[in-house]
Amino acid sequence: MDRNDTTQEVSRYFSDWYKIIDWAKIHFRDRSFTKDERIPTRSGLLYLVERGVLRLVSKGKHSHSIADESIPEDDEPLNEMFLGFIGAGQPFEVVDYPTFELEVYAQVEDTKVIWLYWHDIDNWIIFRRELLDILRYKQKRQMVWLTTLGQRSTIDRLLGFLTLIIEEYGTISESGYCLPYNITHAQISSAIGSTRVTVTRLMGKLRKQGSIVVREDNLICLPQRKK
Amino acid sequence: MDRNDTTQEVSRYFSDWYKIIDWAKIHFRDRSFTKDERIPTRSGLLYLVERGVLRLVSKGKHSHSIADESIPEDDEPLNEMFLGFIGAGQPFEVVDYPTFELEVYAQVEDTKVIWLYWHDIDNWIIFRRELLDILRYKQKRQMVWLTTLGQRSTIDRLLGFLTLIIEEYGTISESGYCLPYNITHAQISSAIGSTRVTVTRLMGKLRKQGSIVVREDNLICLPQRKK
Repeated sequence: MDRNDTTQEVSRYFSDWYKIIDWAKIHFRDRSFTKDERIPTRSGLLYLVERGVLRLVSKGKHSHSIADESIPEDDEPLNEMFLGFIGAGQPFEVVDYPTFELEVYAQVEDTKVIWLYWHDIDNWIIFRRELLDILRYKQKRQMVWLTTLGQRSTIDRLLGFLTLIIEEYGTISESGYCLPYNITHAQISSAIGSTRVTVTRLMGKLRKQGSIVVREDNLICLPQRKK
Repeated sequence: MDRNDTTQEVSRYFSDWYKIIDWAKIHFRDRSFTKDERIPTRSGLLYLVERGVLRLVSKGKHSHSIADESIPEDDEPLNEMFLGFIGAGQPFEVVDYPTFELEVYAQVEDTKVIWLYWHDIDNWIIFRRELLDILRYKQKRQMVWLTTLGQRSTIDRLLGFLTLIIEEYGTISESGYCLPYNITHAQISSAIGSTRVTVTRLMGKLRKQGSIVVREDNLICLPQRKK
C-alpha cells in the first residue's frame, strides 16, 4: 500500500470537508452518538464520519441451517461479525441483502456522523472526485483484508487482521503502534471466523513470541519494526 | 442489493465506454489474452475489461510460518487464493502489499483488457463519476463477500460463495442460473478457506439437497427460486 499516496488523497479530501460539515449542520444532517450507541442507517444514503470512529458489524438474518459436522462447538453463540472500523473523514453506505443486516455503532464516546443523499452532492464535483479516490483506497484495502482472512491458519489470520487494523487506525506510543481503543476477543474471533477461546489462546502465543504487545490498559500494539 | 439501481449505473457507464475503447486502441493500450494467460499488471494503473472475464488471485509472498496445531492437513499445497472475477465493463487496480501479490488471469478465451493512467481520465468528468458508482457497487459487494466468507460453517460459506458469484456472473439456462465458465474445486476451496476434498464432499451434499445443480458440462447452477 502506498502510504504517501493515501495521505495526499486524504488531505485533498479535507479541503472540501469543512464546507460539507457546515452544509450538514445547516440542514440538520449531523448527530453525535455515545459509545456503543447504534447509528440508525438506511441504504441509499451516504454517511460521513465527522469525528470519532464507527464499528461496522453484520448480523445474520437467518442461517442456512444446514448441519455441518465440521463446525467446532461454539463457545459463544455470536451471530454477529465484526467487519471493521470507519474513521473520521471516511464515508460509508449500508447495503440491503437478504441474508444479513449491516449495523453501525459508535466505537468511542462522542462520535459524530453526517448524512447526505447522493443527489445532494451532484454539483460538488470535486467532492465526488475525491470520494472516488477514497473508495479506490477502500477497495484496495478490502482486497488485502479478504486475502488476510482467507488464510487457512488461524494464527496467520489473527496476526494479519491485527496488523491491518493497527496499520490503519494505530497511533504511535512507547509500546509501538497501538490500536487506540479496545476490541474484544469475541469481536476479533467474529472477524477472523474463529472462536473467542481460540483467539485468547493464540493472542497469548503471539505475545510470547513478541509479535504483539498487549498493554496494561488492554490496548493491542505492534512492536515497532526494526529497519 | 438493488438490482435495478445497478443496471442503471452500468448502462450509464456504457455511454462513455465506447469512447474510451477507441481512445485505448489509438494509444495502443489494449490487448487480448488467451484463456488462463496472465495479464501483466502494475499498481498505479487503471485496468478495464473490454470483453471476457478475468480471474483475480492472490499469492502469498511468504507465510508467517508459525505452526498452528489447528491447521488441518492440507490435501493440496495451494498458496493461492481465488478473490473473484472481473467482468466486462468493470475496472480494477492491483495493490502492492508486503505479504502477498495480486495476479490476474484471463478466465475465458479472447479476454480483452485496456489500461489507463489515472491522469488520462482527469478530464473525463462523466467517466470518473460513473467509475465512482461502480466502485460504490463493488464496495458494497465486497461487504457481502466478507460477511459470506466470515461464516463459521464451511457449507454456509460454500453455498454463500456460489450464490454470490452466480448472482453476479450467472446466465439463465434450463437448469437455473449458471456460472457460464468452470471453476475448480481447488479454486473454490481457496476462496472459502477450506480444502479441495471438503469442497468436493460438501458440493455433493448441496447437490443432494437440491441447493445447487451441477450440469453435465460441470457448470454450477442455482435452481430458480420459487416465487
